[in-house]
Amino acid sequence: MPNGAHALMKTLADAGIEVCFSNPGTSEMHFVAALDAEPRMRAVLALFEGVATGAADGYARMADRPAATLLHLGCGLGNGLANLHNARKGKVPIVNIVGDHATFHVKYDAQLQSDIETVARNVSPGFVRTSMTTAELCKDAVDAIAAARGLPGQVATLILPADVSWGEGGVPHPPPPPPAPAAADDATVAAVADAIRAGGKVALLLGGAALREPGLLAAARIAAKSGVKLHCETFPTRLARGAGLPPVERIAYLAELASLQLSALDHLILVDAKSPVSFFAYPGRKSDLVPETCAVHTLASPTQDAVASLEKLVAALGAQAAEPMLQAAERPSRPRGKLTAAKVCKAVGHLLPENAIVVDEGITSSLMLAAMTRGAPRHDLITLTGGAIGQGLPSATGAAVACPERPVIALAGDGAAMFTIQALWTMARETLHVISIIFNNASYSVLNVELERVGADTKISPKAKSQLDLHGPVLNFTHIAQGMGVPAARVTSAEGFNKAFEHALATPGPHLIEAMVPESLGGTKRRILPWMLRSLPSLPPTLAHAIRRKVAP
Amino acid sequence: MPNGAHALMKTLADAGIEVCFSNPGTSEMHFVAALDAEPRMRAVLALFEGVATGAADGYARMADRPAATLLHLGCGLGNGLANLHNARKGKVPIVNIVGDHATFHVKYDAQLQSDIETVARNVSPGFVRTSMTTAELCKDAVDAIAAARGLPGQVATLILPADVSWGEGGVPHPPPPPPAPAAADDATVAAVADAIRAGGKVALLLGGAALREPGLLAAARIAAKSGVKLHCETFPTRLARGAGLPPVERIAYLAELASLQLSALDHLILVDAKSPVSFFAYPGRKSDLVPETCAVHTLASPTQDAVASLEKLVAALGAQAAEPMLQAAERPSRPRGKLTAAKVCKAVGHLLPENAIVVDEGITSSLMLAAMTRGAPRHDLITLTGGAIGQGLPSATGAAVACPERPVIALAGDGAAMFTIQALWTMARETLHVISIIFNNASYSVLNVELERVGADTKISPKAKSQLDLHGPVLNFTHIAQGMGVPAARVTSAEGFNKAFEHALATPGPHLIEAMVPESLGGTKRRILPWMLRSLPSLPPTLAHAIRRKVAP
Repeated sequence: MPNGAHALMKTLADAGIEVCFSNPGTSEMHFVAALDAEPRMRAVLALFEGVATGAADGYARMADRPAATLLHLGCGLGNGLANLHNARKGKVPIVNIVGDHATFHVKYDAQLQSDIETVARNVSPGFVRTSMTTAELCKDAVDAIAAARGLPGQVATLILPADVSWGEGGVPHPPPPPPAPAAADDATVAAVADAIRAGGKVALLLGGAALREPGLLAAARIAAKSGVKLHCETFPTRLARGAGLPPVERIAYLAELASLQLSALDHLILVDAKSPVSFFAYPGRKSDLVPETCAVHTLASPTQDAVASLEKLVAALGAQAAEPMLQAAERPSRPRGKLTAAKVCKAVGHLLPENAIVVDEGITSSLMLAAMTRGAPRHDLITLTGGAIGQGLPSATGAAVACPERPVIALAGDGAAMFTIQALWTMARETLHVISIIFNNASYSVLNVELERVGADTKISPKAKSQLDLHGPVLNFTHIAQGMGVPAARVTSAEGFNKAFEHALATPGPHLIEAMVPESLGGTKRRILPWMLRSLPSLPPTLAHAIRRKVAP
Repeated sequence: MPNGAHALMKTLADAGIEVCFSNPGTSEMHFVAALDAEPRMRAVLALFEGVATGAADGYARMADRPAATLLHLGCGLGNGLANLHNARKGKVPIVNIVGDHATFHVKYDAQLQSDIETVARNVSPGFVRTSMTTAELCKDAVDAIAAARGLPGQVATLILPADVSWGEGGVPHPPPPPPAPAAADDATVAAVADAIRAGGKVALLLGGAALREPGLLAAARIAAKSGVKLHCETFPTRLARGAGLPPVERIAYLAELASLQLSALDHLILVDAKSPVSFFAYPGRKSDLVPETCAVHTLASPTQDAVASLEKLVAALGAQAAEPMLQAAERPSRPRGKLTAAKVCKAVGHLLPENAIVVDEGITSSLMLAAMTRGAPRHDLITLTGGAIGQGLPSATGAAVACPERPVIALAGDGAAMFTIQALWTMARETLHVISIIFNNASYSVLNVELERVGADTKISPKAKSQLDLHGPVLNFTHIAQGMGVPAARVTSAEGFNKAFEHALATPGPHLIEAMVPESLGGTKRRILPWMLRSLPSLPPTLAHAIRRKVAP
C-alpha cells in the first residue's frame, strides 16, 4: 500500500483537484515527494503563503473547482489567512492542506508548535479536521473536498500531521458526489412573484452563482417583463460583464452612495446575496443600508441553486419569452495627455481584449473602471470579496493558472500590491499571461477618504498623515518587478500607458505597468463632492440620478 | 474628557510604550488621528503587518520594553501572526492592538468581520481582551501592558472597536507596577548545587534572561568553580556574545548533532530554558533529545528571576570569587576569492564593528556565523525563536528603531527574506542603519536537507525538487531593494563583499548586500557528511569532538 501522501495525492486528483499552490516546509516533505507519483497534479510554488491562498482563490473562481493549498503549520496558515478570508467571504471552494508536526511530536511544544485548528476555524468554520491516521487520511480528504465543493463553497482545512503523511497503509478514496442543490420552493417563488407584480419599486440583488451568464439572462428576462432593477453585490466573486451580457448595477462601496441606490425601493429580492450593509461603521450612521420601508425577500440563499431559482421565477412571471436588455458594444476613446487613474481605466476600456479576466484591487484608483469597461468585449471581473487587501496579484496568478488561454489584467493600488508583491515571482516562474497594472499614487488614498468619513480628520498633523502616505521613499514597482523576473515599465502619460498595455497584451508572459498617477480622491469634503459631480456621466444611471437630486438640487 | 483613542495614547506613553509599529485601516483612523496629541509616541508605518509585528519583536528584544502594534481587524492580525508567534516563543513582550468594527456593526457580518479573539488566542494565550467601553479602555490597556511585561514576557492582544476608540469619555490610567519576579527558592538551589557537586557530567542550559552579561558571568563563575558546561538554547531571543564575554555553546539545530552534544550528560540544569527537543519529528527518531540517563533540573523557570537564581547558585557553590572564562578577542582573516556563504560569515567576523546587533535568519548559509564571530567585538545576537520564517528583516528594523546608535547586521536567506521583504521600505523611510545581507543561493536549501532527513528523498524527480528551488527566475534582491529605496549591491567575490560591507558600515542609513553564493549543504548524505567533517575546525569543541568520534572513528 502507498504511504499517506501518495494515497492523498491520488485521492485529490481523482476528485478533480489538479493544482496545488504551495509553500512547503519540513513537515510537508513527503507530500512534496509524492507529487512525482501523480502526473495529474500540478504544483505551483509561491514565495509567501498569502500568494498561495490568494492564487487558490483566483483559480477556483475561474476553474469552478477547488485547488489545494499546501501550507507549513500554523504560521504558514497565518500568513495565508487574509486571502483565505477573502475566499470565505466570496464563498470560494479551497481544499486547504496544512502540514503539522508528527502526532507524537506535538506534546514537546517545539518551536513551530501552535494551535492550528484554532487559527483555521476563523476561515474554515464549516470544516477543520486533523487527520489522525494514515488509514483514514483519504476519507478525511474526501470529506474536506465535499465540504469545500458544497453550497456555499467554502475553505475546508485538512491538517496533515507528518507521520500520517509518511505512514504506510494509505487507502485512496473515491471522490465525493457532486453537490445537488435545490431551487427555491414554490411558495417562496410565488411570494416573490407576488411582490414583483404588486407594482412597487423592486430590485433583484444578485450575488454568487447568479452573476454568470445564465443567471444574468434569467434576471434580465424578469427585468424586461416586470421592470425590476438589477443590482449586484458591491464585491462580486466573479461577475460576467461586457458587450452582449445583461448589465447589472453594483451597489456602491460608499455607504452614502449605496443608500441612495436603495432609497426608493419597496422590495429587495436577494439571490445568493447578502442584504447590503455598510463596509465599515461610522459615527452616527446606520450600518444597515436598506431603508426601513423596504421589504427584503430571499429568493435563493447561498445553499440553494440560484440559477434554477431565477428560472422558476421567470416561469412564475411568464417572462420566458421576454427579451433581455443586453449591454451594447461601446468603448471609450483612447486617452491622451498626463496620466490619471481615470485615464488608466479608460485605456483598459479602450483596449480590453476578448475574453479577458479583470482582477480589480485598484481601490480608489479604479473607481472609473466599471464605467469605462461596461461595453468592452465580454470579460469576467474578480473583486476583493472580503476586504482583506493583498488579494489582487495572487488572485490573478491563480486565475491565469486556471485559464491559460485568457489574458488576465490585474489592477492594484500601490499599497494593496505591496501586501503580496511576491506573486510577481510566481507569475514569472509559471510564465503566466498576467498584466499587473499598479497605480502608484504614493498613498493609502482610501484612508484619506476614510479619515474624513469617520470624522477623525479635524486638524490632522503631518505625523498622523504620514501613516497614510507612501512617500519617502516612493516605491518603484518597475525595479521590484524586475527583481522578480517580470518585465516592467513605468509610465507617466496616457500615450505611454497605451503603448505599454498594447505591448503587454501582444506579448505572452507576465508584465507589470507602473502607472504614475495623482490621487483620485482627496481627503476633504471639498474634494469628494466635486469628484462625485464630475463622475456623474460615468456612474450607473440610478446612482447618478440620485446624487444629482441630493447634491445638486 | 478626551476620546478613547486620545486617552489610550496617553496611557501607553505614560507606561513607557513610545513606539507603535502600524499598518492601519479605516477602523483605526481615530487612533491614527490621536498620534498628533501625544509627542512621546513614534509611529512607524509598515507596508505589511508581518513587518510591523516582527519590528515590534525586534524592538522589545533590544529596548527591554514593549512596543505597540496597530493592526487592522482579523486579517491584519493574520498577516502579523507568524512574527507574533516568534515573539511568543521568544517570550518577548508586545502590546498588540487590533482595531475592530464598531461594536454595533459586528452583527451585520460585513466583509471584514471575523473572529479576532480566536485568531489572537494562538499567539496571545495569556491575554486577549476586546475593550467594550471607552470608559474602561485605558484600564484594559494597562492590564494588557502588565500582561505583556510580566514574566515570561508575552504578546498581549487588546482588541479596540472603532466606537470605543472614537467615543467620548476616555480616562487615562496610570501605568502598572513593574514585575517583581522571585529567584529560585533555597531548596531548589541546594538540590541543584548538590547535583553539581556530585561529580558527574553537568551542563547548564541557559535561555531567555540568562543570556545577557550578568547571567552569563554568573554561569561562567559556576563553570569556573565546578567544571559544568555552559550551553544555550538553539534559538536565543537575545544573546550577548563576543570578546570579553563568557562563551556558551548553542545546542545545534540538527537533532543528530544536538544529541551528540547532550549524549554524555548526567545532569542538565535549565535556567529560563526549555529541555531540548527536536525541531521537527523524523521517522523512527526520538523527539526528546536528552538521554534517558540524564536528570533534568529546573533552576529557574520563565516566571522566575533567572539572574538572581544563578547568583544564588553561585553563592551556594562558593563561586563568588571564581574567575569566569572570557572569550578572547580574535577575528578570522579577510576572505578572498569566489564568494561562498562561509566567506560571508568570515567577512562579517573580520569586520564586525563594536556594539553591533546581529540578526541571524541565514538558515543554512549562516551555519559558520557563530564560529566566525565568536571573538569579534561584543555584540547582541537575535535569532529565529519560533521557526516562523520571515523574522529577520522586520526584527532588524525594530532593533534599529530601539538602538539608533548601534549598527544592525541582518543576515537572511533568499527564501526567508522574501516572506517579509517589505521591511526594506520601512528601513528606508526611517533611515535606519541596517545592513541586510541576503544569501542568494536560489534555493530553499534547508528543505533539501530536510527532504533527506525525513527519508523522503529517494528518487526525487525535478517536479518535487522544483518546490525547493528558487531558480526560474533567480531573484534579484538588488533591484527589489532599489525599488523600496534601499541602496544595494550584488557581489560574487569575497573582495566585492568586503568592500560593500565596509562601505555600508561607514555610511549611515540602510543598505542591502546581495551575496551570490552556492548552497552550503547539499541534499544527500554524500554531501552532508563531508560538510560536517570540513566544518569541524569551526564547530564548538564538544560538538566537533563528538562528531569525530562518531563519524570518523
